[in-house]
Amino acid sequence: MAPPLTDFSRLCIHTMTTKPWTLEEAARGYAAAGLRGITVWRSAFEGRGPAAAGELVRSHGLSVVSLCRGGFFPHGTAAGRAKAIDENRRCVDEAAALGAPLIVLVCGSAPGLSLGESRRQIAGGIEAVLPHAASCGIRLAIEPLHPMYAADRSAVNTLRQARAICRELSSPWLGVAVDVYHTWWDENLEEEIRACGSESTLFAFHICDWLTPTVDLLEDRGLMGEGCIPVRQIRGWVEAAGFDGFVEVEIFSRRLWATDQAQYVEAIKAAYLEHA
Amino acid sequence: MAPPLTDFSRLCIHTMTTKPWTLEEAARGYAAAGLRGITVWRSAFEGRGPAAAGELVRSHGLSVVSLCRGGFFPHGTAAGRAKAIDENRRCVDEAAALGAPLIVLVCGSAPGLSLGESRRQIAGGIEAVLPHAASCGIRLAIEPLHPMYAADRSAVNTLRQARAICRELSSPWLGVAVDVYHTWWDENLEEEIRACGSESTLFAFHICDWLTPTVDLLEDRGLMGEGCIPVRQIRGWVEAAGFDGFVEVEIFSRRLWATDQAQYVEAIKAAYLEHA
Repeated sequence: MAPPLTDFSRLCIHTMTTKPWTLEEAARGYAAAGLRGITVWRSAFEGRGPAAAGELVRSHGLSVVSLCRGGFFPHGTAAGRAKAIDENRRCVDEAAALGAPLIVLVCGSAPGLSLGESRRQIAGGIEAVLPHAASCGIRLAIEPLHPMYAADRSAVNTLRQARAICRELSSPWLGVAVDVYHTWWDENLEEEIRACGSESTLFAFHICDWLTPTVDLLEDRGLMGEGCIPVRQIRGWVEAAGFDGFVEVEIFSRRLWATDQAQYVEAIKAAYLEHA
Repeated sequence: MAPPLTDFSRLCIHTMTTKPWTLEEAARGYAAAGLRGITVWRSAFEGRGPAAAGELVRSHGLSVVSLCRGGFFPHGTAAGRAKAIDENRRCVDEAAALGAPLIVLVCGSAPGLSLGESRRQIAGGIEAVLPHAASCGIRLAIEPLHPMYAADRSAVNTLRQARAICRELSSPWLGVAVDVYHTWWDENLEEEIRACGSESTLFAFHICDWLTPTVDLLEDRGLMGEGCIPVRQIRGWVEAAGFDGFVEVEIFSRRLWATDQAQYVEAIKAAYLEHA
């Protein structure tokens, strides 16, 4: 088991975690709470554009950890696939303008296609985007999503599948994002994380918790400690594999969004020290 | 791809699929629809007891395919585990009285325990129940449940894990139930089903569909053809592995429970011919 974290130097919060806040409120709120890292969702640009968004958060002393999110490659038509690739290249440009070193990929899944075909199209889409990402110095992280999202959000549902794509495309600009919510149930998780370490593909680490009962498939995640995920144990595996980057808190929760967001950030800090 | 089914000789419906019906209504309704198989949930005994329930359904010309459900082995205390084992032995007695040759096991998961510990306790619980099941001539089928149920319903979430328990306990009375809802996302599904065939552990096959979006984790399953699961393809894998038993329709759906159940049974028959 990893020793507890004792300060907030590695704590990063996703703007979507405090969704009610504008980017300006989030930047101010995170900075006031003594944080150093922020992951910016594209929806948080809010018309100001990525360059201005980057300036804003840096003016509050925050580092941009990643841009969420690219992906959604599979489509039933060649035109749809080409459009998705264009959109991902645009996302790379946004990451560069924002000053984000990394884009998290939610890979997509097209209802009309088999999972196997969706997976092939995902690999093809990433392959098409990689040269532009490399030329801009932006890393891409495949985030395997929980199998409950296989039908519509991602046909990549295990770390093993994400690693297979990384091996196939073999680029220093391509790796994985390990999110405990999506992967905690996997009996192979420890060995898969270790393999990511050996392959130098462990690019990002996201935390939250799994609630019992979970009443919504999308927006009922828990704060660390509220559920059953062994977050600290998984952080230990991630660090044993060589990862020493930001620990990103990504929680979608209608219940928590309805609370005072400044107090919520303090609750995140407490849960981070106690459970992460 | 398997050829379409052309009659209803292998169609079985779970009583829970037509939850608004009493067991008497279900037996009468399934028989009137020309079905031959019924899987009885324990909740459907409704005070009449398993022997009377068995007589009732047989009087309508129906065969009992299985009893749903045993399991829920993991507990935080030894007393809790012993109680679960007793309850499963009682379930074996009920299956014998009902005339069901098989019990489906929803293995359980205890929130306070690690998944690894829950999995060990599941294997221990099944091991403790097997001698009684064997002496009563009742087969036990481990049903791997979708990873979204890992926290509270089953720590056995893949066919691979279910097979590992079968190999560990090595009994002709222990096998698996493959439910497309729980397993369709698994990239190893075809080879895992093939391995079940080689190991003679493929005891039951359940079908329904996965809806997009799924609005409830428990009671929003779809009728075959309403969602994205390649049901016929999976049936082909199951049959290639040597399975020729009943194809069991197990759908939990508040939406479909709210409809006329006799018309719903006809819709199931049509979907069975078209998509299963």
